[in-house]
Amino acid sequence: MVGDDFPPGERDYLASRDIDLAGLEVRPGRTFRWTGRYHDDMNVRDTLSLELNVFADFRPRLGDAARRARFVFLANIDPRLQQAVLDQFEAPAIVAADTMNHWIDGARDALVALLPRVDLLILNDEEARLLSGETNVSRAARRILALGPRSVLIKRGEYGAILFSPDSVFAVPAYPLEEVFDPTGAGDVFAGGVVGYLAATGERSEGGLRRAIVFGSVLASYVVEDFGGQRLRALTRDDIDRRYRQFVALTEF
Amino acid sequence: MVGDDFPPGERDYLASRDIDLAGLEVRPGRTFRWTGRYHDDMNVRDTLSLELNVFADFRPRLGDAARRARFVFLANIDPRLQQAVLDQFEAPAIVAADTMNHWIDGARDALVALLPRVDLLILNDEEARLLSGETNVSRAARRILALGPRSVLIKRGEYGAILFSPDSVFAVPAYPLEEVFDPTGAGDVFAGGVVGYLAATGERSEGGLRRAIVFGSVLASYVVEDFGGQRLRALTRDDIDRRYRQFVALTEF
Repeated sequence: MVGDDFPPGERDYLASRDIDLAGLEVRPGRTFRWTGRYHDDMNVRDTLSLELNVFADFRPRLGDAARRARFVFLANIDPRLQQAVLDQFEAPAIVAADTMNHWIDGARDALVALLPRVDLLILNDEEARLLSGETNVSRAARRILALGPRSVLIKRGEYGAILFSPDSVFAVPAYPLEEVFDPTGAGDVFAGGVVGYLAATGERSEGGLRRAIVFGSVLASYVVEDFGGQRLRALTRDDIDRRYRQFVALTEF
Repeated sequence: MVGDDFPPGERDYLASRDIDLAGLEVRPGRTFRWTGRYHDDMNVRDTLSLELNVFADFRPRLGDAARRARFVFLANIDPRLQQAVLDQFEAPAIVAADTMNHWIDGARDALVALLPRVDLLILNDEEARLLSGETNVSRAARRILALGPRSVLIKRGEYGAILFSPDSVFAVPAYPLEEVFDPTGAGDVFAGGVVGYLAATGERSEGGLRRAIVFGSVLASYVVEDFGGQRLRALTRDDIDRRYRQFVALTEF
């Protein structure tokens, strides 16, 4: 859902990338807007303003095509809405979900009720600590797995990501960039890359999920190189494949 | 150099592990002693007391056998002493060196003079930032490489380690432990494992250095499981090989 201020050029761009916009709702009013300031340590940021605008009464209703989707990513929002969205899918094969501190603190019961329906919970290390009450990341992941998700993928910013499943652990470093221009949205791009890879390949194995995480890491490493989503506009499949190979070179021994 | 309070049992233990003790000097007085307290976040610790004792006028003089060693690890100490020790080797093939904030701040010129003679500089991320004046780890590493060491290995605590050479980067995660009992000396064990692997195998390639770093990571992951160096006493080669394979499983995709 966007407001009637949403730039037509942005819509055209999404359509040009073959993204189904049937579910994009335009309402009178202003689009959701967040303003923040990053510290020198880009892991720390201050929110300067947050306007929900048309998002304030967002109650997603999926169209028929969307309901039949097999790969679902429940992006970060109120877990009651995530539940209501998930209820609308006919037979999802893979359900990934993101969340944040705000919901862990303020809507914990709804979040915990959602988790048994989630194949891949994606959250950052601070959120994992808050949800589990454990400081140690391995213990935190074990506690969260006990709440029901099939696997837990913990984002660690400049240190990469670590995946915990009942029987295995997979850790991948972040791509070592000499400059991070704008980290806004890197976590969303990461999650989108992971789920996009799974959807595009149909992979369901542990190995497939690992490759998906590297793929998401590649995309996240690109998006932070420019402001907002700008970098993705110029990105080619060759760019992605090249950096994927660099991840192989970065980690093989 | 130790004091005359050094327990004979410790000396016997070292000898039982086939360690050459010809260079171990015993002086009247007390052995070096450090006391500290770790925070809940074990990356943070307070020094409660530091007694140099017999270490106060440590001026290492190597015996003939030691002078012919091909693999040299200059553990963390005043870089003027590191230089003086290095001068005593006849033809070292690989020189690794550690350092710390105290010397970066207080003996920078001597440290910088040492670096062109170092093949592998080992330091932690905070030290890398202090030495380079750069916050970003990749830029920090580039700056340090420009000072002369052939490669820079940056320790990142629970996030593992990252190796920068002029033409490549290698990142390895730490082994995900559910409990860290005592992190004291983990960095020394890590460095010892890296250089020990190189010395034992004679490997000089990039691939060999990478495997050495994983080997060091394995040893560091064990030593933190018990107090001081206790865990190493019970450690077998099978334990090491098993966890090395777990590092493969942890990182492969």
